[in-house]
Amino acid sequence: MNTKPPYYAVIFISKQSEAIEGYSEMSKKMEELATQQHGYLGMNTARDEVGITVSYWKNLEAIKQWKANSEHLMAQQKGREQWYNWYNVKICKVEREYGFEN
Amino acid sequence: MNTKPPYYAVIFISKQSEAIEGYSEMSKKMEELATQQHGYLGMNTARDEVGITVSYWKNLEAIKQWKANSEHLMAQQKGREQWYNWYNVKICKVEREYGFEN
Repeated sequence: MNTKPPYYAVIFISKQSEAIEGYSEMSKKMEELATQQHGYLGMNTARDEVGITVSYWKNLEAIKQWKANSEHLMAQQKGREQWYNWYNVKICKVEREYGFEN
Repeated sequence: MNTKPPYYAVIFISKQSEAIEGYSEMSKKMEELATQQHGYLGMNTARDEVGITVSYWKNLEAIKQWKANSEHLMAQQKGREQWYNWYNVKICKVEREYGFEN
């Protein structure tokens, strides 16, 4: 990801339920759909006891549009009904960034 | 975590090397040490292909002090020398938050 701050991050923390049928397919589909959204910059994801997905966006408008995307809305509803015991979403402004590479 | 936005998040994304000897102990130690820092609010962590640790802080000053903590500085150095192929750190202001619980 080559974008320099400021940009936006959505931190999505979730706890899966036992009923994860269909989750993996939908997760892949949503990831593909997100990459096609205007203002999408990238994503990191990892899961063990909880799942953490951080997606990066050019601005708040892009986040708002992705949240309101009709296919994404269906996935969100299905998530609340079936796949998640709980989740938490944080909308953040990335102010500074640094890294290291061997 | 009961704090309402605005507060700060540090998103730490990392790729481990093969040489992870001592990592687990240090990771646990740093997690305990972080909780004792002034302005520390909480943490979420998950690892599969990459590791994502998001720590939450009251303000930028608390983040600065944690980064400069002497034991944490040693852990950071050891991380660059041995445990990580790469990492990326993003300093973010959490502006909005919402959730769901079954």
